[in-house]
Amino acid sequence: MIKSTVSRRGFFGGVAAALATVGLGPKSFLFAQGRRRVTEAEYDGFAKLSSNENPYGPSDAVMEAMNYGFKYANRYGYPDGDILQKIADHHGVETDNVLLGAGSGEILKIVGATFLQIRKKVVGVEPSYGSVYRHASGVKADSIKLALLPDYRQDIPAMIDATQKNYRDVGFVYMCNPNNPTGVIVPKREIDQLLDAIPEDVPVLMDEAYHHFVTDPQYASAVPHVLAGRQVIVARTFSKISGMAAIRLGYAIAPKNLIDQMRPMGTGSISAIAKWGGATALGDTAEQEEVKRITLELRGKTTAALTQLGFDCIPSETNFFMVHLGREVRPVIDEFRKRNVLVGRPFPPMLQHLRVSIGTAEEMERFMTAWKEIFPNGGPKASG
Amino acid sequence: MIKSTVSRRGFFGGVAAALATVGLGPKSFLFAQGRRRVTEAEYDGFAKLSSNENPYGPSDAVMEAMNYGFKYANRYGYPDGDILQKIADHHGVETDNVLLGAGSGEILKIVGATFLQIRKKVVGVEPSYGSVYRHASGVKADSIKLALLPDYRQDIPAMIDATQKNYRDVGFVYMCNPNNPTGVIVPKREIDQLLDAIPEDVPVLMDEAYHHFVTDPQYASAVPHVLAGRQVIVARTFSKISGMAAIRLGYAIAPKNLIDQMRPMGTGSISAIAKWGGATALGDTAEQEEVKRITLELRGKTTAALTQLGFDCIPSETNFFMVHLGREVRPVIDEFRKRNVLVGRPFPPMLQHLRVSIGTAEEMERFMTAWKEIFPNGGPKASG
Repeated sequence: MIKSTVSRRGFFGGVAAALATVGLGPKSFLFAQGRRRVTEAEYDGFAKLSSNENPYGPSDAVMEAMNYGFKYANRYGYPDGDILQKIADHHGVETDNVLLGAGSGEILKIVGATFLQIRKKVVGVEPSYGSVYRHASGVKADSIKLALLPDYRQDIPAMIDATQKNYRDVGFVYMCNPNNPTGVIVPKREIDQLLDAIPEDVPVLMDEAYHHFVTDPQYASAVPHVLAGRQVIVARTFSKISGMAAIRLGYAIAPKNLIDQMRPMGTGSISAIAKWGGATALGDTAEQEEVKRITLELRGKTTAALTQLGFDCIPSETNFFMVHLGREVRPVIDEFRKRNVLVGRPFPPMLQHLRVSIGTAEEMERFMTAWKEIFPNGGPKASG
Repeated sequence: MIKSTVSRRGFFGGVAAALATVGLGPKSFLFAQGRRRVTEAEYDGFAKLSSNENPYGPSDAVMEAMNYGFKYANRYGYPDGDILQKIADHHGVETDNVLLGAGSGEILKIVGATFLQIRKKVVGVEPSYGSVYRHASGVKADSIKLALLPDYRQDIPAMIDATQKNYRDVGFVYMCNPNNPTGVIVPKREIDQLLDAIPEDVPVLMDEAYHHFVTDPQYASAVPHVLAGRQVIVARTFSKISGMAAIRLGYAIAPKNLIDQMRPMGTGSISAIAKWGGATALGDTAEQEEVKRITLELRGKTTAALTQLGFDCIPSETNFFMVHLGREVRPVIDEFRKRNVLVGRPFPPMLQHLRVSIGTAEEMERFMTAWKEIFPNGGPKASG
């Protein structure tokens, strides 16, 4: 029953669907990928496996809640579904420990704006979610980017070492867990190891955007470290498991002293639609389980097929995975684009790996069809 | 016909109205005004004349466009109604001259983050929209706050003088035009006078949040100064005339060199709902005219009644006005609150003035009824 709910979301929910055929927009828009104009119909026709999106969109309950939020479209300080309290309750913290952001992207920017200045440093691995490092450059801070281990895990001893050696200059440590673009987790014991070894006053930003897709029992959220009083900031988003990427809602969970420092750097400018949707999405666990189930099933099917064709896939704990091509990724991305399949951009220094987000079953079929055209002779490990 | 469109918006549009009776939220929420919990029904029952809101909400066309935006709720880099190009076309500038914000509030923060640092100064009048000065304090910058003239106009010679005398330290000049909370404009010739007198490289932030309500022919937008190459940043919002306050959309129009400096300080995190709504709202001029007409009619009626009762009102060019009470405003605000009428907060140093936003006809009647109870003996100029 839940499955059918997820599957039948084409556009979303009954309310918006009524408007699906209304022609509102211009004939084309500036498409970020490639910076050229594409038509809306062209965009809608892509298999979109490039941005780790949830292809099913918000659940019906969340759609209903967001529509309800329109009631306060023209207001300030309106009833907001009690989103802050609900997030606090969800994690067993106080509302003083929660900061809302327009997506976890805003949270990452706020952390940068709060803890980095000229010559301060952020410590983290590369590749990872790059916006933290880009923001650091923007404010003339430095990034200490550590290489991944040969098996693509984050190098915790190197992270500890870099933090200790640069202690006076480190603004914060950044860890995306599971990591984007690799899909690999940092196990709980390694987070404990990191926090045990670095000075207690160094903030650690744990980006848990893909938290909900993890099944590995060695993984654990870092929220308990916040409750234990460590200077840990956990960033969460409604963009992935809840399918609300374009609605822009995320939050930070952190000790009050850090939230108090961060708050003035935020816009405090979250839409009523996001707040009402988020307040409902938090409790939407059956839908989330179903999105996770379908996504992991399709991930398993796709990586098995690629392995069969002779390509190594990095074992993933997220709604995307990386596959080793044995050649440069850039022309491969272009080949997919020609077939109306959008796949992940290059992630230096892993320039022979392709990141593939898990779309719908139909999109994954289009991906595999394109794959076989682009790699007619199989992969580096192909037997043929 | 348009009038009936505006008038019949209770909740908004046909789409959302279908959901008006769904009970989604908790029984109460934390209400910013007074920081206490109020129920949703209690909030809905207030006459809300405290926050310069448009009581009619988004037009049907904008509601339809926002609902259409749900199509891309789960996406990044999606068709967005071509909002940036439409804003550029609307003002006859290039997209390089436009920066989107989550409300003009984010634009004001971005300007502060870009041009103020420790010991830098912002020059402007007091009272005005205070968030600029609060943000300055937050980043340890200073505010040079100039007194209004006796007739509540902004003191342009003092602004010029303060800018010249502090030239090396001035991050930017702030002007809210028309000014909030007074409702008074700075005429075009005085803006020209300011720009002619201050050094050309001092950025001037012109906050035109209430632009659409002005009728005075001496007023003009500062956008032509941007086109003329001056270091002017015009901030606009969809919160007022378009009734989208809780949707969070605004923008800056400025020379490319300023936009390029400002862009890294923004979240770039605007919802699809806001973008689609804004793209339609820009062209929604008949609805805007009607909102303006009704608002100014009710403003005229209300200020005439208060004048009749012996109270002086400051002539306003906005969807709010200030009235001189002849006594402290704080207890008067509390008296209105007891009668479920929300009016403006105190605006120091004008602590004997009350700011009243223009609500619906019904809300203004409730306001006048409460007024007569709170001031049974008329005002400072009452004849009786």
